[in-house]
Parts: sequence; C-alpha cells; structure tokens
Amino acid sequence: MKQVLLKARPQGFPKASDFAVDTAPIPTPGPDQMLLRTIWLSVDPFMRLGLDEKPLGGNNGVPLDSVMIGDAVSEVVESNLEGFAPGDFVICRSGWREYAVVGAGTQNLRKIEPAKNAPLSGAIGALGMPGQTSYAGMVTVGRVKEGETVVISAAAGAVGIIAGQIGKLKGARVVGIAGGADKCAAVVAAGFDACVDYKAADFEEKLKAAVPDGIDLYFDNVGGDVTHTVLPLVKYGARWASCGFISNYDVPDYGPGPDRMPWLLRMIMLKGLEIRGFNGAIVGGKPALDQMRAWVEDGSIKIKQTVFDGLDKAPVAFESLFKSNANVGKVVIKVAKDA
Amino acid sequence: MKQVLLKARPQGFPKASDFAVDTAPIPTPGPDQMLLRTIWLSVDPFMRLGLDEKPLGGNNGVPLDSVMIGDAVSEVVESNLEGFAPGDFVICRSGWREYAVVGAGTQNLRKIEPAKNAPLSGAIGALGMPGQTSYAGMVTVGRVKEGETVVISAAAGAVGIIAGQIGKLKGARVVGIAGGADKCAAVVAAGFDACVDYKAADFEEKLKAAVPDGIDLYFDNVGGDVTHTVLPLVKYGARWASCGFISNYDVPDYGPGPDRMPWLLRMIMLKGLEIRGFNGAIVGGKPALDQMRAWVEDGSIKIKQTVFDGLDKAPVAFESLFKSNANVGKVVIKVAKDA
Repeated sequence: MKQVLLKARPQGFPKASDFAVDTAPIPTPGPDQMLLRTIWLSVDPFMRLGLDEKPLGGNNGVPLDSVMIGDAVSEVVESNLEGFAPGDFVICRSGWREYAVVGAGTQNLRKIEPAKNAPLSGAIGALGMPGQTSYAGMVTVGRVKEGETVVISAAAGAVGIIAGQIGKLKGARVVGIAGGADKCAAVVAAGFDACVDYKAADFEEKLKAAVPDGIDLYFDNVGGDVTHTVLPLVKYGARWASCGFISNYDVPDYGPGPDRMPWLLRMIMLKGLEIRGFNGAIVGGKPALDQMRAWVEDGSIKIKQTVFDGLDKAPVAFESLFKSNANVGKVVIKVAKDA
Repeated sequence: MKQVLLKARPQGFPKASDFAVDTAPIPTPGPDQMLLRTIWLSVDPFMRLGLDEKPLGGNNGVPLDSVMIGDAVSEVVESNLEGFAPGDFVICRSGWREYAVVGAGTQNLRKIEPAKNAPLSGAIGALGMPGQTSYAGMVTVGRVKEGETVVISAAAGAVGIIAGQIGKLKGARVVGIAGGADKCAAVVAAGFDACVDYKAADFEEKLKAAVPDGIDLYFDNVGGDVTHTVLPLVKYGARWASCGFISNYDVPDYGPGPDRMPWLLRMIMLKGLEIRGFNGAIVGGKPALDQMRAWVEDGSIKIKQTVFDGLDKAPVAFESLFKSNANVGKVVIKVAKDA
C-alpha cells in the first residue's frame, strides 16, 4: 500500500516537497484493533501547526520520516474491535495511508452513517470538524442575529463557506472575503450577499461599501492584513470569532515591523470588542454535529468540496490550502472508491 | 480664579509643560445653569486619548488654549438649575478650573451623597468611574469565581487596587503587577495575595512562581510588554478583561517592530482566549455604583488615594500617571476645602 511520510519540517508554509510517497505492507490488526481502508482523506490548515519541532497548541506532532497525520473516512475491512464490523464506515485520525490499523483510542474515532444530500466525505467537512467550527463560530461564539452584518474571511474555505450559509439561515447580511474574482463568484453562488476580493487594489473601499452600517460579527480565519482592514469597520461592541489566522501560519511568532499589537489593543478597547478564540470541535460538540446534519439533510446547507484524486496528491492538496488557488469549499483527497 | 489650559498637543506621554495655569473671571450662571466651586479634580489615563488632533474612541477632544477637560467633585454655589441648590455636592466633567458654570447637559453630571468610610473624592474614585470599571472588569466581564487565579496589571492604580479587593471578596487568588518594590508592598498591603515588580530583571520568573496553576482571569490596564509576559501563563479558555493599555498611550497606532500581532492572534486561538474591551461606566452602570458604595460603606473595600495639593498641580499629577512614580490608588487634586 501507499503512505505519505513527512520528510522535512516546513519552512514557512508547507510545500508538497516536504512530503514523500512511500510503500509499506498492509498491516494486520491485533486484538482490539481493526483494519481500515482509507476512502477520503482530509487536509486542514491547522495541521501545519503540528509540523514544527515543537507542535503548537496541543496539536499532534509528527516525527520526521513518519506517516503524516490527518483525519480520514474509511471502511472497516477486518475488525477485532467491539462495535465495529466489516463494511462499517468510520472517521478517525488514521493518517495519510491507504490502509491503517487502529484501536479504540484513535483520535476522533466514530462510526458514521451516510447522510442525505452528502457524500461520505461530508464527515470530514460540513458533517464533521469544519461544520462544527462553522456552527460554533457563528452560533455559539458569534451569536449571529437576524438583521446583523457578518463578515467572514477565507469565505471560500471549508469553514467559511458553511459559516456564510449559517449566517443566511439566521437572517443576517453576510459578506465574504476571498482571493480573486472566481472565488468571490463561487462564494456569492453559495448564498453570500456579497464577496470582496482582498487581492484587489480597492479592497478596503469595496469592503467599506459592502458594510455600510458597520460589522456586528467578524468570523476570522485569516488574521494579518485582512483583519487589519476589517477591524476599523466593526461597530462598537462587535463580536470577533477567532477561528484561525492562516495568513500567519508561516510566521513562528513575530513578523516584520512595525508592531501592530498597540493598534490591536487600542481597537479592542476603543471598539469594546468581544473576541473569542475557539476550537470548533470542543465548543460546538455534538449539538453542532446534529444541527449540521439536519441542515444538510433538509437542503438548507449545501456541501461544497474540491477533490484531489489519489493519495499521491495529498501533499499538493495540503500545499494548495495555503496558496492562492481555485479551491472552493472543503479540500478532500479521494483515496479509493466508496464501495 | 485659576484655570488650566492645554497649550501643546502631547508628543507621546503628556508632560506638565503641555499645560499652563491661567486666570479668568469667575463666570456667572445664566438661566438653567449653576455655578460650581471645584473641590476635587480627577486625573485619569484615558484623558490622554482626547488630546490628539483627532480624539480617539469617542473621547472629548480639547482645543488648544482651552480649558483642560476632567471630572471634578464640586459644591453648588449658585443655581438656576432645577434640582440643584447651593450646598449640594455634584460630580461632572467641569474641567480644570476653580469655578465652572454648567447646565443639565454637562457630561457625567449627578448629585452625590457623602458616603460612610469615604472622602468626597470617592465620587471620582471607588464610588465613581474607576470603581465602576473595577467592578465591570472583575464581575460583569471577568466573571471571577472562588478559587480562581486573577492577575491584575497596574495593580497600584486607581482601578487595579479596587479590582484586586473585589477579587479577594469573591474568593480568588489575586496577583498584582506593579512597578517597584514600594508599590508592590502597597498592593500587598491592600489585600492582594502577591505583587510582582515588572521592572525587576526576574519579572517573568517571579510571575510564573506566583501563578503556579496558571491564570483564569487577566485584568489588563497596561498592554505592551507586561501583557506579552502574562499571556503565555493563562490557562486554556481564560478571560481577559481589556480595560486599558497605558504602556501604549504614547504610541499613536504602531510601535517599532517586530510585529507582535501574529503572536497575539496565535495566543487568542491556541489559548481559546475570551477577550473583552470594555468601558466601565457603560458596562458597570448603576448596579456597579450601588455595589461599590455598599462595599465601601460596610468596610469591605478600602479607598486608597494619592493627593496633589492645589489646581496648579494638575499638570504634574496628570504627567505622573504615565511615569514611574510613587502613586498608589486614585490620583486626585485637592483644589479647595470641602466646606
């Protein structure tokens, strides 16, 4: 079988060349273990944070020359583990490989039931962690209300594109920020009221025009210059759901000056900002999963994904998360057929 | 009568020389106005924010060569204003002058009743805006709970020294941060469990030792390097009541590099921080004033103040807020006798 190893610690954003495809024998499950066949593999920006010598924020570290971590949707091939039988579909953090042996303690392990209006990969998208994150940010943390104005950065991303749909379901005006005209068009097609291209020279002007009454809720996945442009436009007392800061995932801690910390502290106080950094899986929990499933099954939320074909493509797909590209929605790797 | 004029816009922190003492005739109240005799004058760090060409954050701007703004406790001398009679004590933003004519629309105007265990200046301290701010930050925003660990920066300041007493009343472990051994001793004498000197070479080490279980609530009045040292020590999910950032009141927006914004965004997300910038008067409101009065009258909260004698001293007192100095508690200027 094929598997993908981490060969070099990324310098800045990850590159496909930090990884290498390798082969290994298909493993055999011992007692209380099962053999999984990987069908869909997930690549998520947060995975970058586990790739430094010292993994950040409780993320799993990955030793060099070992299999890259990652959540996957798999089929049970053989099982010595109670509660799991061949033919079952599961999600867990089984890594970048075509087959994996896992036990009950494997991170994120749960059985999944196919859902209406969703591919099996929904379990690593709208029906899984990214969906929980969108829900937690918009509803639990963001408390979005009818008639409010919401701005979502990385609006075309796995989390952003669902968050915007939740905002619309809740009756808010939803403005996305994304890179390039094509992505912005895809974001509007997904139901956002508007989407502003942060790469355009008139980004600030266009954003101002899109939020004439100011911003009640900022759902931030990006940080950096985008956030620097957004914050002056928020209303007094606005909420800021801080979901990620992908623009700075290449910066270990500090960027080149000037220091924007005084500016940010001033914004926090003078705007009476309420900010919350959150982990979607923790904050959203099961209620978020249940609500997302209900919304997908009744057609309220549409799943969007960009598919890369074959395990070999996992490094390229991961690199693409951090680059200007055409990805819309959740990026998934189709490793094998569903059945 | 004497009055104090703003003569130069401060470059960086304010200096006494940005102001000049002037004389003017005692004004005469018109219809619906009253004449006040200033007794106690307040100097507060936030007043710096109104002194730039463009006042920040809704603060009152002060034109050059006009009377400096400021809250004061005064006695009504003559009144054509309904509800106010000679001999009443009032607080309002009447400015740096020995007498003032004000109307019903004057900012912060309210009658004050002398309180047990408090000088009249309590109305611009623990029984006024600074007290509201301490309450709002610790209770409304900070939700301090028994057994928690709280860190308060600028602990010897008007707000900090009350905030710490509130923390103790609520059963928390309260650690202050202040500049110099004398101030730290005064903070501990006010009831804090410990106080760490941020000017000492071993500040970080001492702070770590003072919060062995991490920090649940950070009540921040300082920002900058102090906050940079505190944040790595907060627990996951900690609250950060952002009350002020006095270390950066001299920086218009950006300081010299490196840029700490990526670090701060990373802290927010990886620590699952909840931050709220707040205005104590708005957030605390009347319930905060009522509770503070009850605590002062029953002896639970002790008022601490540093007194400068005479209106001429207002510029020096204001400058002293931003400098290393011996001030403990609320800084007030005694302009005239109480009766």
